[in-house]
Amino acid sequence: MIPVSEHRYRRRAQFAEVDAARIVHFSRYFRYMEEAEHALWRAAGMSIMPPDHTVGWARVGASFDYHAPLRFEDEFDVLIRIAKIGGRSIRYECTITRGDTRIATGTMTVVCVAERDGGMVSTPIPPEIASRFTVSAEATA
Amino acid sequence: MIPVSEHRYRRRAQFAEVDAARIVHFSRYFRYMEEAEHALWRAAGMSIMPPDHTVGWARVGASFDYHAPLRFEDEFDVLIRIAKIGGRSIRYECTITRGDTRIATGTMTVVCVAERDGGMVSTPIPPEIASRFTVSAEATA
Amino acid sequence: MIPVSEHRYRRRAQFAEVDAARIVHFSRYFRYMEEAEHALWRAAGMSIMPPDHTVGWARVGASFDYHAPLRFEDEFDVLIRIAKIGGRSIRYECTITRGDTRIATGTMTVVCVAERDGGMVSTPIPPEIASRFTVSAEATA
Amino acid sequence: MIPVSEHRYRRRAQFAEVDAARIVHFSRYFRYMEEAEHALWRAAGMSIMPPDHTVGWARVGASFDYHAPLRFEDEFDVLIRIAKIGGRSIRYECTITRGDTRIATGTMTVVCVAERDGGMVSTPIPPEIASRFTVSAEATA
Repeated sequence: MIPVSEHRYRRRAQFAEVDAARIVHFSRYFRYMEEAEHALWRAAGMSIMPPDHTVGWARVGASFDYHAPLRFEDEFDVLIRIAKIGGRSIRYECTITRGDTRIATGTMTVVCVAERDGGMVSTPIPPEIASRFTVSAEATA
Repeated sequence: MIPVSEHRYRRRAQFAEVDAARIVHFSRYFRYMEEAEHALWRAAGMSIMPPDHTVGWARVGASFDYHAPLRFEDEFDVLIRIAKIGGRSIRYECTITRGDTRIATGTMTVVCVAERDGGMVSTPIPPEIASRFTVSAEATA
Repeated sequence: MIPVSEHRYRRRAQFAEVDAARIVHFSRYFRYMEEAEHALWRAAGMSIMPPDHTVGWARVGASFDYHAPLRFEDEFDVLIRIAKIGGRSIRYECTITRGDTRIATGTMTVVCVAERDGGMVSTPIPPEIASRFTVSAEATA
Repeated sequence: MIPVSEHRYRRRAQFAEVDAARIVHFSRYFRYMEEAEHALWRAAGMSIMPPDHTVGWARVGASFDYHAPLRFEDEFDVLIRIAKIGGRSIRYECTITRGDTRIATGTMTVVCVAERDGGMVSTPIPPEIASRFTVSAEATA
């Protein structure tokens, strides 16, 4: 199987995601980015949280810059790319577009964690997971 | 400790809870009712999900009738009452008011469950929990 | 155009919709039902909130009975049916299924409203909207 | 009235905000930061969206770094500070703590906008708003 470096996830803005300013609430973009992340994992033949999971993926940083609003029932694309894979972390970049309009650009860094003594500690990314992903040549950072 | 039969929970409507019609989205009321439920449990000296929990509380039914809207920054009261306690279930009634205005009335029925073989099965309410609650004389059903 | 009486909407359970019990939070079902409602309107050739809307659709009642849980990444169907059309209101029925498993059954009653003096008052359903819908023969109430 | 430069907002983590990893979902922090922003405005004697508002506050950037998780029913503080006030924008810094534990640090930049021709354009911050705020001496950027 060819390693996956990016995924395009299509979504429609739902009514409950739109706020009193009649645009999608800015916090929603982080959910769109995460939905795209999980779709990327499925495209790589995996679930990010299978029933028998031994590792989890703690978010250690996330950001978005907002360029143009999304409105109710807009269809848009969430393009997520792997910008970096470290021994214990993955950095994603994300671009949201509606047709030719650039809506928002985001980043998210996640760390591979395992449960220990009721808490979570960072742990090396299992090789069977790391081997399914590769850094995108289009990533900017 | 005197058993608890009801609890009044004070809340303010937040921006992200308001939809494009500039009123609180109808799905939010179910979260307000649940927040009040958990505040009721705390008022009874318990957490509904302590770290060492052995039982959970599956929702089997929930409803709301909406009488008047809530708007951004409105302060309101969520009054939750225990309407019925069975061997394995609790039925709550809920009234949301803003000052003298009746906003919404809801119900929620929850069943005590335990994990078994990866699923959930109903189980008797532990007596140390049941003893902390009593049916409200004000409940209508 | 043939009037529309029901619509089947396909959805996947997302991570942020799953709660600490690792099942979809019960309040989410009301959003699924509303998403299906809006997809029904699109299937009837309309938007429920077009940019130039003159009427809105206030929710006056909503309920769900929960039969089986949904888990992370489950794919499921939300079947929404028109159970009743009055002069100023529509009653929907909704059944959520995952394959052959019945997950939940819901209802929602909405009233056609127009803005007046900063508030909302009920108003007759415009005939150009009413003519696009018809009651489902499968509805139970 | 003395201009306001920061505000401490107290919150409790609610059940529906906790995800399948049993920690508060990372997207929620952006809502906590916004709730604190609106509490800061109230502390300054204003609403960020009064019924007769002529300007709005578009989010143009937001970020969080996550240091430690929040769990169900945790009580925590959201400290929001004004880091910069420009002619048309405000930059906030935000620190979330639970007791002595640093949970997360965030930033948010908002631009003052007015509606024009159905869209939004940036506009100078009205002086009666700008005069109520001042930059915090504690802000880092």
